[in-house]
Amino acid sequence: MSVTDELLANNAAYAEGFSGALPMPPARKVAVVACMDARLHVPAILGLDEGDAHIIRNAGGVVTDDTVRSLAISQRLLGTEEIVLIHHTDCGMLTFTDDEFARSLEDATGHRPAWTPEAFSDLDTDVRQSIERLRSDPFVANKDSVRGFVFDVASGELREV
Amino acid sequence: MSVTDELLANNAAYAEGFSGALPMPPARKVAVVACMDARLHVPAILGLDEGDAHIIRNAGGVVTDDTVRSLAISQRLLGTEEIVLIHHTDCGMLTFTDDEFARSLEDATGHRPAWTPEAFSDLDTDVRQSIERLRSDPFVANKDSVRGFVFDVASGELREV
Repeated sequence: MSVTDELLANNAAYAEGFSGALPMPPARKVAVVACMDARLHVPAILGLDEGDAHIIRNAGGVVTDDTVRSLAISQRLLGTEEIVLIHHTDCGMLTFTDDEFARSLEDATGHRPAWTPEAFSDLDTDVRQSIERLRSDPFVANKDSVRGFVFDVASGELREV
Repeated sequence: MSVTDELLANNAAYAEGFSGALPMPPARKVAVVACMDARLHVPAILGLDEGDAHIIRNAGGVVTDDTVRSLAISQRLLGTEEIVLIHHTDCGMLTFTDDEFARSLEDATGHRPAWTPEAFSDLDTDVRQSIERLRSDPFVANKDSVRGFVFDVASGELREV
């Protein structure tokens, strides 16, 4: 039995206690951008209920074209107004450089990726740059509340940058 | 008080009951790719504990360069082996076309985005294409278990495509 099959068995139990359909637009009008890290359970960390907030996640919780695409849809079509960025301590993105990872992919596959790995060497600096990138992007409509945080994987606390 | 401030107050309560640091590599060796939709609480839907799985999310739960970037890091640096794709019923991405959204952005901002909005008109077709795109990408290392599902926002159930 694969892990995926075990997760499907978990889903059957979840569906039994499921309370039914909610509206599509997020009730709290918030979009969260967070790292994909396994230790970040975003709804629990922020006390979000089902239906409350869009949650966008990728390696690092960085702002890429895909993050902007998701936020443009979130804000312009589904009414979110605030953005919460979450990076975290002990992040894998701190452990390599873009060039190292691109070279390892080239060694393994014979191809160099067209995309940038988006590694970073300092959490606070990357949070600040991510906020700046969102504030300067024309497709992000609502920029009044773009705030960035570092989640501490040892304490469970968010620290604002 | 902004919604972000309320979420920070929730985080203080979360941190009080926090049980401490877990290892960086996902314990269940799974990466999930799901839509950002507010009604999808991925850890609850799949019965994932903290530390179990990478969770990647964007508008639609689609496979973009950023999804491949995150999965390449997840598999090659942090040891995940299975991929679970989740689209869902009543998805916002079914309600517009790429051209309509790009034109609305151009009307609002004077710029047309360089990225594709990634709208789709059929859930199952897009899940199948997403699986295919991952299977054919050289940077995705582990392709033996790439499975795709549609989450029913009315019942809480996952249906395999």
